[in-house]
Amino acid sequence: MNSLDFTAETSANGVRERDFTVGGVPGVLWSPASGAERAPLVLLGHGGGTHKKWPAMTGRAQRIVTDCGFHVACIDAPGHGGRPRTAHDEREIAVMQRAMAAGEPVGPVVVRFNAHLAERAVPEWQGALDALQRLPEIGAEGPVGYYGLSMGTAIGVPLVAADPRITAAVFGLFWPDPLAETARRITVPVEFHLQWDDEHIPRESGLALFDAFASKEKTLHANTGGHKEVPRFEADSAARFFTRHLGGAVRASA
Amino acid sequence: MNSLDFTAETSANGVRERDFTVGGVPGVLWSPASGAERAPLVLLGHGGGTHKKWPAMTGRAQRIVTDCGFHVACIDAPGHGGRPRTAHDEREIAVMQRAMAAGEPVGPVVVRFNAHLAERAVPEWQGALDALQRLPEIGAEGPVGYYGLSMGTAIGVPLVAADPRITAAVFGLFWPDPLAETARRITVPVEFHLQWDDEHIPRESGLALFDAFASKEKTLHANTGGHKEVPRFEADSAARFFTRHLGGAVRASA
Repeated sequence: MNSLDFTAETSANGVRERDFTVGGVPGVLWSPASGAERAPLVLLGHGGGTHKKWPAMTGRAQRIVTDCGFHVACIDAPGHGGRPRTAHDEREIAVMQRAMAAGEPVGPVVVRFNAHLAERAVPEWQGALDALQRLPEIGAEGPVGYYGLSMGTAIGVPLVAADPRITAAVFGLFWPDPLAETARRITVPVEFHLQWDDEHIPRESGLALFDAFASKEKTLHANTGGHKEVPRFEADSAARFFTRHLGGAVRASA
Repeated sequence: MNSLDFTAETSANGVRERDFTVGGVPGVLWSPASGAERAPLVLLGHGGGTHKKWPAMTGRAQRIVTDCGFHVACIDAPGHGGRPRTAHDEREIAVMQRAMAAGEPVGPVVVRFNAHLAERAVPEWQGALDALQRLPEIGAEGPVGYYGLSMGTAIGVPLVAADPRITAAVFGLFWPDPLAETARRITVPVEFHLQWDDEHIPRESGLALFDAFASKEKTLHANTGGHKEVPRFEADSAARFFTRHLGGAVRASA
């Protein structure tokens, strides 16, 4: 059982930010600076080629801590954020970069490579969640959500399907084949972000992945614009989604 | 030029509700009870078979007045809310009811009948807006939005396409043929609500209408559930949409 070792701490704008490592994986935990009251936890999965403190991650974390009063955690995916890349990683990244440069579809290699990363990342996330839940301000019984787009969805869908502790999820920006098979096992509430003019993911593909979730309550948010142009107000929407689905338990136990 | 004649007034929960008639059409104006400060206006279009004070209308009005501080107005559509029906209306309603009872598709008759009602309703809405803008608390220069689903979209799309005073709109729950032709002339920000399991409107039809809007900024919200099961949180979302698109102008002129 891996323990969570805090390595650094800062505090700004009402948010306490603590770096940690767990089982050799670097992560960060954002919490309300105001105190140690027990609160729900949202796990953030970052996108391909970025890391746990990418601006989109710190922005989402700030919003969820501030708007919801929740804890937010992110860990670096395998081969990301300074974590070593395997020879296999290097080869796949080279294939991806060649496809990008040639203007060829990147879907096939992204899907294959991210599925490989997910196999390594899911047990890391579960170990991190074990350790996070041993913190008194989170606890083993508290509600847990997951929020990750693009590679964060490629890793998050198998994670949420495998881990019953996660009871609400925001996904989006990914291809359906073969991820939809796993999505069909997910029944928790889902909010799904899709870009109507995504230059990598055909519209029908994104809609097919949304359609696959078995969740009784699921919402699709599709916006005009390309793959990297998800509007900022969708981060607000995700915060409200987590307040609706994770917040009730807090109030009920208060 | 028709004037707006107030006929009744009540106030509750911070909302002032004034009934009016304009050119023989009955309407209602909801405003912040706190005062007469100039604020943006949102027009609500009700659905088929309902009227200006249907619970969905009063609920949306309450939310927009309370959350945004805006004025909200709704008028009864032709043949609705006690307004007389023509012989043509009666025939079309009978056709619709027979289709419903027989479990046959209602789309063709709803589309045809609502297009007919829209021809009568658009000039009524424009006359009502003229009169509303002569009120000092609204004004001729203030921002105006439109929010209507189902028949409220069948009437709202031609209204918004025809009237440049309306600069943001929430639509949804309607068929694309022939409304999409008119939607292609609309360029203002649009939020579009679609039910993923709509028993009347095929999924591809709803998506095709969303796709038709020429708006640079448009967002699709699709939720699980049938035609009449749009979740309540979408009314919150609409209020935030109007705050984003109509609220800035207020602050800028303040």
